Amino acid sequence: MQTRFTIATDGPGLYEITGQVADWVRGTGVVTLFVQHTSCSLVIQENADPAVQRDLMAYFDRLVPSADDPAMAYLTHVQEGPDDMPAHIKAAMLPVSLQVPVTDGRLALGTWQGIYLFEHRRRAHRRKVAAMMVPA
Amino acid sequence: MQTRFTIATDGPGLYEITGQVADWVRGTGVVTLFVQHTSCSLVIQENADPAVQRDLMAYFDRLVPSADDPAMAYLTHVQEGPDDMPAHIKAAMLPVSLQVPVTDGRLALGTWQGIYLFEHRRRAHRRKVAAMMVPA
Amino acid sequence: MQTRFTIATDGPGLYEITGQVADWVRGTGVVTLFVQHTSCSLVIQENADPAVQRDLMAYFDRLVPSADDPAMAYLTHVQEGPDDMPAHIKAAMLPVSLQVPVTDGRLALGTWQGIYLFEHRRRAHRRKVAAMMVPA
Repeated sequence: MQTRFTIATDGPGLYEITGQVADWVRGTGVVTLFVQHTSCSLVIQENADPAVQRDLMAYFDRLVPSADDPAMAYLTHVQEGPDDMPAHIKAAMLPVSLQVPVTDGRLALGTWQGIYLFEHRRRAHRRKVAAMMVPA
Repeated sequence: MQTRFTIATDGPGLYEITGQVADWVRGTGVVTLFVQHTSCSLVIQENADPAVQRDLMAYFDRLVPSADDPAMAYLTHVQEGPDDMPAHIKAAMLPVSLQVPVTDGRLALGTWQGIYLFEHRRRAHRRKVAAMMVPA
Repeated sequence: MQTRFTIATDGPGLYEITGQVADWVRGTGVVTLFVQHTSCSLVIQENADPAVQRDLMAYFDRLVPSADDPAMAYLTHVQEGPDDMPAHIKAAMLPVSLQVPVTDGRLALGTWQGIYLFEHRRRAHRRKVAAMMVPA
């Protein structure tokens, strides 16, 4: 049981995909989500206050500044734009795949957990997330 | 084959859960551990010298200071206390789930690897970790 | 279906293992790779421009400086060399395990994705990566 989700992104931010994953899973087992790119991530985060998502982005933008920031002058892979190498760094640090247990067709998420694609690039992208269900 | 572990925490720190996971798994396959919260994490770390765990905590506290630190003045999600948004950030950066191969009922951990719940919040919590075994 | 890969490392850096993983997997399911150490990591990163890998290493070396850097004077687990505790920190922050969907014997990697062992220690090591395939 497998599929591939496509998520259209329009600049940096967290794009919630909990609903489409929840609609797709069934049975009992573990669902693996795997993002087929090296400049965006998958994260599970609080789905209640949108300020959490803004603060997360603000934090990671400070932790990994744009390549045109003097603090990042040592970067050499800069030909694809100042947001590209920082996106690779964030993609190494944040999950490329997520695994969530599923019981009787329901994701075992906690009350406040949502699943997000975290886009790190500025221009619009169509991101692909491979999904596979393995039975318990 | 599934269960849910409850771990009582009493402030920031690493709480070892290797024993209860090792006692529960059986057969051959992969065990998924999934923490149902957005302000604590699961990590695999050295189980020999307790100084490693203290140093880890010290590092992440410096990397993600408390919201009342002037360096974090840009945070806006602060109504749940100065340790809350930093806990969300650490929870995005550190694993929400872990997968460990199991062979004939034994976790394939290296000699020095232990499994820990990493609590980021100051007040006491009861943390839930969903566990599911999928056969190889 | 399980195996263990051994990767000889000779100092810090990214060592590509995509080929040996691709050659080993078969059928349809999810492959779990699990590194049995607490001072190296597994990452999925761009396999096109080697500058990406150099920049990644440079970034993480700045984020987690050597223990003999004055900024790290608070570390106490220093008896195994100045590169040891920073290696544990990087190993907590970067993946200890990876899961990749496999369809008809093919890894579902994106065009630019390669699988790497990320060595954080300076001296030579023989690193072990447990691999297990679970059917979908």
